[in-house]
Amino acid sequence: MSGTKINAAVVGASGYSGEELVRLLLGHPHVNLSVLTSRQYADQPLTSVFPRFAGYVGASDLAFSEPSIDHLADKAKAVFLALPHGVAAEFAVPLAERGVTVIDLSADFRLNSADIYNEFYGNEHPAPEWLAKAVYGLPEIRRDAIADATLIASPGCYPTSILLPTIPLLEANLIDPEQIIADSLSGVSGAGRKTDVPFLYVECNESLRPYGVPKHRHLSEIEQELGLANGSPITVQFTPHLVPVNRGILTTLYLTPAPGQSEDFNQWTDAVAGCLTKRYADEPFVRLTGSERLPDTKNIAGTNTIEIGWAADPRTQRLRVFSAEDNLVKGASGQAVQSFNIRFDLDETAGLPI
Amino acid sequence: MSGTKINAAVVGASGYSGEELVRLLLGHPHVNLSVLTSRQYADQPLTSVFPRFAGYVGASDLAFSEPSIDHLADKAKAVFLALPHGVAAEFAVPLAERGVTVIDLSADFRLNSADIYNEFYGNEHPAPEWLAKAVYGLPEIRRDAIADATLIASPGCYPTSILLPTIPLLEANLIDPEQIIADSLSGVSGAGRKTDVPFLYVECNESLRPYGVPKHRHLSEIEQELGLANGSPITVQFTPHLVPVNRGILTTLYLTPAPGQSEDFNQWTDAVAGCLTKRYADEPFVRLTGSERLPDTKNIAGTNTIEIGWAADPRTQRLRVFSAEDNLVKGASGQAVQSFNIRFDLDETAGLPI
Amino acid sequence: MSGTKINAAVVGASGYSGEELVRLLLGHPHVNLSVLTSRQYADQPLTSVFPRFAGYVGASDLAFSEPSIDHLADKAKAVFLALPHGVAAEFAVPLAERGVTVIDLSADFRLNSADIYNEFYGNEHPAPEWLAKAVYGLPEIRRDAIADATLIASPGCYPTSILLPTIPLLEANLIDPEQIIADSLSGVSGAGRKTDVPFLYVECNESLRPYGVPKHRHLSEIEQELGLANGSPITVQFTPHLVPVNRGILTTLYLTPAPGQSEDFNQWTDAVAGCLTKRYADEPFVRLTGSERLPDTKNIAGTNTIEIGWAADPRTQRLRVFSAEDNLVKGASGQAVQSFNIRFDLDETAGLPI
Amino acid sequence: MSGTKINAAVVGASGYSGEELVRLLLGHPHVNLSVLTSRQYADQPLTSVFPRFAGYVGASDLAFSEPSIDHLADKAKAVFLALPHGVAAEFAVPLAERGVTVIDLSADFRLNSADIYNEFYGNEHPAPEWLAKAVYGLPEIRRDAIADATLIASPGCYPTSILLPTIPLLEANLIDPEQIIADSLSGVSGAGRKTDVPFLYVECNESLRPYGVPKHRHLSEIEQELGLANGSPITVQFTPHLVPVNRGILTTLYLTPAPGQSEDFNQWTDAVAGCLTKRYADEPFVRLTGSERLPDTKNIAGTNTIEIGWAADPRTQRLRVFSAEDNLVKGASGQAVQSFNIRFDLDETAGLPI
Repeated sequence: MSGTKINAAVVGASGYSGEELVRLLLGHPHVNLSVLTSRQYADQPLTSVFPRFAGYVGASDLAFSEPSIDHLADKAKAVFLALPHGVAAEFAVPLAERGVTVIDLSADFRLNSADIYNEFYGNEHPAPEWLAKAVYGLPEIRRDAIADATLIASPGCYPTSILLPTIPLLEANLIDPEQIIADSLSGVSGAGRKTDVPFLYVECNESLRPYGVPKHRHLSEIEQELGLANGSPITVQFTPHLVPVNRGILTTLYLTPAPGQSEDFNQWTDAVAGCLTKRYADEPFVRLTGSERLPDTKNIAGTNTIEIGWAADPRTQRLRVFSAEDNLVKGASGQAVQSFNIRFDLDETAGLPI
Repeated sequence: MSGTKINAAVVGASGYSGEELVRLLLGHPHVNLSVLTSRQYADQPLTSVFPRFAGYVGASDLAFSEPSIDHLADKAKAVFLALPHGVAAEFAVPLAERGVTVIDLSADFRLNSADIYNEFYGNEHPAPEWLAKAVYGLPEIRRDAIADATLIASPGCYPTSILLPTIPLLEANLIDPEQIIADSLSGVSGAGRKTDVPFLYVECNESLRPYGVPKHRHLSEIEQELGLANGSPITVQFTPHLVPVNRGILTTLYLTPAPGQSEDFNQWTDAVAGCLTKRYADEPFVRLTGSERLPDTKNIAGTNTIEIGWAADPRTQRLRVFSAEDNLVKGASGQAVQSFNIRFDLDETAGLPI
Repeated sequence: MSGTKINAAVVGASGYSGEELVRLLLGHPHVNLSVLTSRQYADQPLTSVFPRFAGYVGASDLAFSEPSIDHLADKAKAVFLALPHGVAAEFAVPLAERGVTVIDLSADFRLNSADIYNEFYGNEHPAPEWLAKAVYGLPEIRRDAIADATLIASPGCYPTSILLPTIPLLEANLIDPEQIIADSLSGVSGAGRKTDVPFLYVECNESLRPYGVPKHRHLSEIEQELGLANGSPITVQFTPHLVPVNRGILTTLYLTPAPGQSEDFNQWTDAVAGCLTKRYADEPFVRLTGSERLPDTKNIAGTNTIEIGWAADPRTQRLRVFSAEDNLVKGASGQAVQSFNIRFDLDETAGLPI
Repeated sequence: MSGTKINAAVVGASGYSGEELVRLLLGHPHVNLSVLTSRQYADQPLTSVFPRFAGYVGASDLAFSEPSIDHLADKAKAVFLALPHGVAAEFAVPLAERGVTVIDLSADFRLNSADIYNEFYGNEHPAPEWLAKAVYGLPEIRRDAIADATLIASPGCYPTSILLPTIPLLEANLIDPEQIIADSLSGVSGAGRKTDVPFLYVECNESLRPYGVPKHRHLSEIEQELGLANGSPITVQFTPHLVPVNRGILTTLYLTPAPGQSEDFNQWTDAVAGCLTKRYADEPFVRLTGSERLPDTKNIAGTNTIEIGWAADPRTQRLRVFSAEDNLVKGASGQAVQSFNIRFDLDETAGLPI
C-alpha cells in the first residue's frame, strides 16, 4: 500500500448510515473523501449539516452535491451507497459497470434470488443479472470473495448480529438448523433518519415493542446465508423489537443440538464454544465473552466490534448465544469500511474503532 | 350541578395536547365526550389510534370524525381546540358566535393586540375583533373572568410556568420588572406530534440545546401578562431549551428586588415568600416547596400541579424561583379543563389529577 | 360493601413497589391507609420523602414508622408487604397467625416447595408450614382461592407476563409444554430502588443486556405454575433482559402446537386465539390486541392492564405471543391491590387504573 | 519529541473520569499507560472491569493495583489523579515533591485560598503550602504556566463551560462583572459513579431538577478565576441542573455590557463577538458557532471540543452566550490530557478527539 490515498464517495450521506460513513472515512488514514451526495442537502457544507464533523481534518472543505453517476465515476475509485433499497441499484449498476468499486449498504444486491427479493421487498428486482455477481459483504465469512468484488452488498444490521454467531455452528453441523430462534432488540437509529410518528422521541421513550412480524425484510438474507452455511435451505424464527436507545442491537439466539449431537449436552456446549473460539480467535472485530460475562451494547457503542457470549442451559438442553453490536457500525457503515479495506488490500482495521 | 353530564368536544385530538384532553375528559365525572375530530384519523375508532384508552369507560364507542362547525355546535356545549395557531380561529369564532363555550389551546386569542400577534406569529390576525372578548385562561389569576367567558384562550406551557410564580410578585411591587430572566427546560412533547427531524428519538436523546432565540413566540403572552400585572409594559428575558424527557417544564427565574425593596435582602426574600404563600396557600394546583426542597418535574408528571420553590442568594442579592409543571397538563390540557370546570361551575379539581 | 373503609398498611413503603402501593391505596375508594413503615425513613412525613403524593387526600397526615407486628395487627385489617425475600416472612407469619390478611409482594410464599425455594433463593425457607396455606395471588387464575386466603403471595413481575398468556393454553392442551420459550425485557424499576452500580442512570442508559442467566429466581414460580396448569412438571426457557425504560415488561413467547395439534397450523392458531379470547374476554385487566396490532408497554404504563397479542408464523409453525405490562402495577402493586379487592369482596377494579 | 513514550498513571481509575482517562491515554500516541490504581478493583484486569477497552492495544496487559506512592513515583513520569477531593491531596503532594508531574482532576488544588477551600469544601485544606504552587489547568487561559507546572489542578466541568466564554470578555472589560448569570444543565455522569438513590436510572429518567443551591462547590473556582480576569473579586450567579443524559453540559450565560459599553448595543455585541473570535480562532478545541446555529451537546459528545455560540437580545440589552462540552472530556479527562500534552511539549491535540 503506497502513501496515496484512495478517493472514496458516499452517496446518500444524510441518513444515519451515511453520516456514520462520513465519520469513519474522514478518520480513515488511507481514504480521501472526495464526494458526498445528498439531494436534500445539495450545495450545503458538510459542517453546516453535521457540526460534529467540524474538528475533522478536511471536513471544512466538503459540501454535499447532487448525486451524478459521471461525477462519482470521475472522482472516486470506491463509492459507498447509503440509499433506500430500490434507489441504490440505480447507482450501483452503472458505477460497477464502469469499474468503480461499489459498496452498497442497501438490500438491493444482498439476495441471490430475484424472486425472493420480490417476495420480501414488494417490487421487481431492477437488475437481476447483478445478483450473482454481487458479493455478500460479511468479512469474517466472505473475506476472499470481497477482495475481488466489484459490487459488495453490505449486510443488514440484524443479519450481522445473527449470522456471525450462527454460521460457524451450522457449517460444523453442531446445531439443529430447523430450531433457530433469533430474538433481537434494536436502537432507534436502525429505522433511519425517517420522519415518521413511531420514531419521534416521545413515541419511543418509555416504549418497548415488537415490530416487523411476521416477516421482517432482513429475514430473507438471514435465511439465505444460513441456508448456504447449512448446505440446504432453512427457516428461521426472527423477532425484532424496538427499544429506546440510539445505537445498538442485542440478539438472543436460542439454539439446540443438531440431530446426533444431543447425547451429551456438556460435550455439545463445549464443542459449540470451541467452534466459535477457533473460528473467531484471530478476528479483530469479534470479541468472545464466553459465559463469564454476557454482551452489553454499551461495551461496543461506536466501534466495529461485535461481542458474542453464551449461556448453556442443561435444564432445557438449549444454548443461548447473545451478540451485541452497534447497528450503525458493525451493523452497517463500519462493516462496509471493513469490506472496503479488504477490497483495497489495506489493513482490515484501518480507520475502524475496535 | 345536576347529575347531567356536559357534552364536550375535542377538535384536533390527534396531537399530544388533544390526546391528553381525551385522557382527562374520559375520566371527568361531569363530562360526556361527545365529539372527537381529527382530519388525519377521521372515521377511525379512538382506541385503534390510541390503544391506551381502551380501558376507559365509553372509549370504545368513540371514533374520530372530520371537524364540522355544525356538528360541533350541535353536539357540544363546550369545545376544546387543540389545533395549530391560525387554524384554531377558524373554529373558535363561528362556535363562539353560536354561543358554544370555546376553550382554545392555541395561541390565537391569547394576545390582546393584533399587531403583536402579527409580529410574533407572522400573519395577520384572522379575527381581531375577538381579541378583546377572549379571556386569557390562567385560572389562578383570572378565575372570575373565566367563569363568564365564551372564548377562553388557554395559556402556553412556558408562560404558565413563568406567570404563576411572577405575577403575584409584580402585583405586590416586590420585584424589579426590568430584570426578570426566565430560563426554561422543556420535554419533547412540547413540540407536538410533529414529524420533523429535530424531534426524532435519535436527535433528542443525549442532546441538550437552546432554541427559539431570540424571540420564542410565547414571549409575547409572557410580556403581555406580566405587563398587566406590573401596570406598565415590561421586557422579559426568556430562553427555552429542549431536553430529553417526554413531559415536563422546569423554569428557573432570576429575580431582583424592586427599587425601594433592596435595603434588607432577608426582609425582601421573606416578603416574596410571604406573598407567594398568601396567594397560593389555598390553590389546589399550586404546591409551594419553599426552600427546603426544590421542584422536580417527576413529582408532578401526569398531574395538573405546578410546584414552585425558591432559593435566596444573599451573595448576589437575587432570588431564584423554580417551577415545575407537566407541559401537557398544567401547561396545556389540564389547565384547559380547569378553566372548563370554572366556566361550568363545577368543582375546579373535577377530573384533574393533583 | 358498607361505606366503612378498610384499614390497610404498607410495610417497606420506600421501594418502588411500596411507593406504587401507596399511590394506589391513597386513591382507593374503600381503603384507609393506616400505617406506612420504612426503617430508612421512620418518623419522616410521607410527603417529605415522596413529594408527588402531596396532592392526595390524606397524604399529609401520613408518616413512616418503624415496622412493628403489634402496631400493624392493631391498626390494619390488611397488610401489604413490599420487603426483600427472607425479610417478608418475618412479618407475614405472625401477622397471618393473628388473622390479619397479608398480601406479600416478595417471593417468600410463592413456591409450594421449600426445597425449590432453597434451590433458587439460596437459604432455608423460614416458615415452610405456611407454603401450603399461602395462595399464589394471580387473580385471573386463582380468584376463588384468593377470596378466602389469609396469606396471599403476589406473583413476580416476569411471571405475571408469562403465566397469563400461557396457562390457558396449557390447560387446554394446545401448546407443547416442553417447548415454551419466554424472552422478556424489563425496565429498570424492576431491580428495585437499589443503589448498585449496574442500576445507575449512566450504566443503564444506552445499554441493552441479558442478565439472570442461567436461572433467574422467577423461573421457579413460572415453572411451578405452568406445571400446575399442565398437570405435570415442565421446564421453561426464560431469558430476562434489562433495557432503559423506567417501567414496563415486554415478553415474547415462542409457542408450538401440542403433540396432536400440529396437523393444521391455521386451525391451531385459531384455537389458540379462541382459547385466549374465551378466557379473557371479560377480564377487566386483560386487553387482547389480537394480531392486528401488537402490545407496547407505553399503552399500559401506570395501569393494571396487561396487553396480550399474537402473531402466527406458518413458516416456522410457531406462534409468538406478546405481552406488555407495567412491572410495578400489574406486575407488582396493582395486582396485589386486585387480590385485596377480591379478598375483601370489593369491586375488583376499585382503585386500579385500567 | 522523540519516539519514546511517556509513562503515565491513573489513580482512581474506576470512576467515570478515571475510565475516560484510560480511554484517552490508551489511544494516546505518546503515552504508555504504566499504572492503573483502584482500591475497589485491585488485582482485577482492566478489561474485566471495563470490557469496552478490550480492543485497545495494550489493554489486555493492564490490571488495577492498590495505589502506592512509591510504585507510582517509580513507574510514572506523570500521574493523573481521579480521586475525591480531600483524598487527592494525599497523593498529589508526595508525588509532586518527588518531582512527578501531577495532574489532579479533583478540586484540592484549584483554589488559591485555603479559607475559601474551607468555606466551600467544609474541611481544612490538607496542604495549603501547595495552593500557590499549583497551576489551574485551563489550557486556553494558562498555557504557559501549565508548561512549567509540577502540580496541575485540572478545572471542574461546570467551571470550564463558564470560564472559557467569559474570561476573555472580562479581560477586555466588555461585560459587567457584577451581572454574570450562569445557568447550567449537566448529564448524570457529572455526579460520578456514585451509588446514591438520586442517581439511579429510575430517579433521573423523566426528571428535571435544579440542585446545588445556594452555593455549589464549583462556584468557588468560577469566582476565583473570573475575579482574576476582572482584576478584582466578583460575585457570580450560578445554577446547576441535573438532566437525563449520560454526558454533556450546556451552559447559558446572561451577560450585560460593562459600564461605559452600553451606549450602542449592536456595537457592543460586535465587540463581544470579535473578542471571542480573536481569542479562540486558532484554538483547536474551541468551536465558535456564532449566532447562526447554537451549541448542542450532541455535537461534541466524546470529544475535547467546547462549542460556544451567542444570541444578542436588543430588547433586553443582554447577550446570551451558550457553551456545550462533554463534561467527562473537555470538562474533566480530556482537558487533563490537554494539559499533559502542554506540560510534556507534545502536540496539544495528541490523543484527543476534536
